[in-house]
Amino acid sequence: MTAGPVLAVDIGGTKLAAALVDPDGRVAAHDRAPTPNAPGVDGEELWRALDALLGKLVAGAGNPPLAGVGVGCGGPMTWPAAEVSPLNIPAWRGFPLRERLRARHPGLPVRVHNDAICVAVGEHWLGAGRGHGNVLGMVVSTGVGGGLILDGHLVDGASGNAGHIGHVVVEPDGPPCACGGRGCLEAIARGPGLVAWAREQGWRPGDGAATGVELAADARRGDPVAGSAMRRAGRAIGIALASATHLCDLEVAAIGGGLSQAGPLLFDPMRAAFAAHARMEFATRARIVPAALGQTAGLVGAAALIHEQDRYWSAD
Amino acid sequence: MTAGPVLAVDIGGTKLAAALVDPDGRVAAHDRAPTPNAPGVDGEELWRALDALLGKLVAGAGNPPLAGVGVGCGGPMTWPAAEVSPLNIPAWRGFPLRERLRARHPGLPVRVHNDAICVAVGEHWLGAGRGHGNVLGMVVSTGVGGGLILDGHLVDGASGNAGHIGHVVVEPDGPPCACGGRGCLEAIARGPGLVAWAREQGWRPGDGAATGVELAADARRGDPVAGSAMRRAGRAIGIALASATHLCDLEVAAIGGGLSQAGPLLFDPMRAAFAAHARMEFATRARIVPAALGQTAGLVGAAALIHEQDRYWSAD
Repeated sequence: MTAGPVLAVDIGGTKLAAALVDPDGRVAAHDRAPTPNAPGVDGEELWRALDALLGKLVAGAGNPPLAGVGVGCGGPMTWPAAEVSPLNIPAWRGFPLRERLRARHPGLPVRVHNDAICVAVGEHWLGAGRGHGNVLGMVVSTGVGGGLILDGHLVDGASGNAGHIGHVVVEPDGPPCACGGRGCLEAIARGPGLVAWAREQGWRPGDGAATGVELAADARRGDPVAGSAMRRAGRAIGIALASATHLCDLEVAAIGGGLSQAGPLLFDPMRAAFAAHARMEFATRARIVPAALGQTAGLVGAAALIHEQDRYWSAD
Repeated sequence: MTAGPVLAVDIGGTKLAAALVDPDGRVAAHDRAPTPNAPGVDGEELWRALDALLGKLVAGAGNPPLAGVGVGCGGPMTWPAAEVSPLNIPAWRGFPLRERLRARHPGLPVRVHNDAICVAVGEHWLGAGRGHGNVLGMVVSTGVGGGLILDGHLVDGASGNAGHIGHVVVEPDGPPCACGGRGCLEAIARGPGLVAWAREQGWRPGDGAATGVELAADARRGDPVAGSAMRRAGRAIGIALASATHLCDLEVAAIGGGLSQAGPLLFDPMRAAFAAHARMEFATRARIVPAALGQTAGLVGAAALIHEQDRYWSAD
């Protein structure tokens, strides 16, 4: 049944991406389109854009028989029913994504998970975590998300929300977080938070639409404030990883997302903070590595929800 | 094969406990002995004391056919081989506990896990976590330990060390921890740490050998410094639980150990800190509850390594 490719989908606030992914994880065809996400766009318009993208991709590949449909989408969502309300896509609030895709693909398995979880799954299946039983995959970007593979299986938790490393507390009296808490990793290390912090410290980005990616690039070019911002983020990530490693006995943490493009300027302080706080003997053996799959990790992981269901899908 | 009772063993620095535990978790027979743990005691003397305790218990019950031997022992240990080096038992350093018990019980399964993990398993099987798929069991005592059940199964992690909630970082610049790190939950909330803090604040215990249990009792009696110590511990535990709940999507955290005897004086600040930091919608549904099984939790959990092996034992 899973001999054909999976139609893999990655739904973000900026772009919709889709791919046909073979059982060995090879991306056989790939396409993308901007997410219709202007104010006033309604949910059906967004659905039609997705429908058109998927139709074009599958037709262009000669309508192969599909093994199923795997989707990564921004959270929050109900799970596994996948009524999705992505933070960055206001047009979808409780949108019945799984149900709509099932109607579009009758008889096929359709599985939806958080986009950061799909990245973690992709990195575990074929990327930086491959071959290890206990891996945290992490995305440091506009938000800070992740997914947790323990004892060889994706952890879903009570409601499909395991992996929220972005809301591990790294500074109890630290800055307020969008979640309503304080001192969460995400409050410190998310791109927009770092950009705001760098601006306060006098950083002047090259254009008005400064992002974490631009900040990371400036850090690489030697901008001292951008470098400080990366150290600030790296330290916070390292502390959170020490907590996660002690709690979950991880072997590998794979770090991706736009901010990770800063390279050693982010990874050096991250590893230093990790080394300072992850001191139990078993924890010292864990490795922090850059994610390996780049942009396709989420699509590969979404495909794994079907192709490698014994490891990555516990629901239905 | 698991129709008979399990010989369950709990090995601590103060006492050795053993029980015959039926397949339904009932403790059919129970005995204990002081741990020979004076300076200079050698490992074989300790083994002989354990051997005598087990022999007496099983003979006293009429030598029933056993389903296996399940053991909780203080860490660290290699796992699953269980060469144990319990912090509080200097006479055993790399002691081959599993091998010795296998030689004592040829043909029977013998399984050893960390004592705090056994408590968590006991609480999940038949205590405060019963019926929930995602549970952290925690012991706040001389140390702070725990065990993690996710998606219905005990998490072992890379080396059997998952569940080390005591080394989640709650205050990055906080007090040094025995592990070599800083600001770990255990550095703040372990009994001896709290006792030392309370003494600095002017607490005068009734006798010289002050413990966390005595501090908890004084807090219940209205001693203001002891009460402050419980608030300090409670807040730290609540922050660590918020991190763990966000990372693992927990439903229940069950808190036991001597310090938990302070009751609301510990649980109120714990729940307040948790409520302040566990703000993702899914996390607000988690409940923090006192452990339910008391002293027998570790023995019941050790028995579950055999009786309920599909959920609690992944090795061999």
